[in-house]
Amino acid sequence: MDAIETVIERYFAAWNEADAPVREALIAQALVDDGRYCDPLSDVEGHAGFSKMVEGVHAQLPGHRVQRTSPIDRHHDQVRFEWEIVSPEGTVAITGVDYAELGSDGRLRSVSGFFGTGVPEEAAA
Amino acid sequence: MDAIETVIERYFAAWNEADAPVREALIAQALVDDGRYCDPLSDVEGHAGFSKMVEGVHAQLPGHRVQRTSPIDRHHDQVRFEWEIVSPEGTVAITGVDYAELGSDGRLRSVSGFFGTGVPEEAAA
Repeated sequence: MDAIETVIERYFAAWNEADAPVREALIAQALVDDGRYCDPLSDVEGHAGFSKMVEGVHAQLPGHRVQRTSPIDRHHDQVRFEWEIVSPEGTVAITGVDYAELGSDGRLRSVSGFFGTGVPEEAAA
Repeated sequence: MDAIETVIERYFAAWNEADAPVREALIAQALVDDGRYCDPLSDVEGHAGFSKMVEGVHAQLPGHRVQRTSPIDRHHDQVRFEWEIVSPEGTVAITGVDYAELGSDGRLRSVSGFFGTGVPEEAAA
């Protein structure tokens, strides 16, 4: 498993970790210290900000899991990968794509999530 | 037409402009002065860098046009939109998606292009 695969595995593990100290340890392996994460519903910075945001998503979507559904597509320091959020019953609740920039140490420096793996027709700027 | 629609219209006009001074004027309206553009084949900075890169693409794909094929999907300072490159005969040569971060003045600060509107199955990090 190469470095970027490992970083992104830790990132998804962090998304799915209910135990806050374990989650924060995973986040520290996935995101640079002042890393930013944003999506249509969130815009947070740093490990604590990311951890608290994940806690909020767990509260809103109890028992759901986030999982990667595509290969990691990379060029230069840029990556993208698709994902889905699955309910405890196995229903896909949301699909999306993350675009990320890597920091010089290979951890994620900035992650921007969008809902829908392609741009939805009704998307409006 | 709102600000981001205008900026992205100028961006595509710049891609399709053969006349260098006109192209550079369009780029100045689309990209911040030290803006970065990268895709699997390019990684350039600033208006001159972007202009020269476009000139190279024109030389490689004579008579082709780049056009947007999706709405602009935006949250916070983040946007994505899909595009295609069409040959003079009307054949789609390449499809892709641009993910971009906006600068504080509404111009593009950083653009990362990927080939394929979704992540291709054969993508490898």
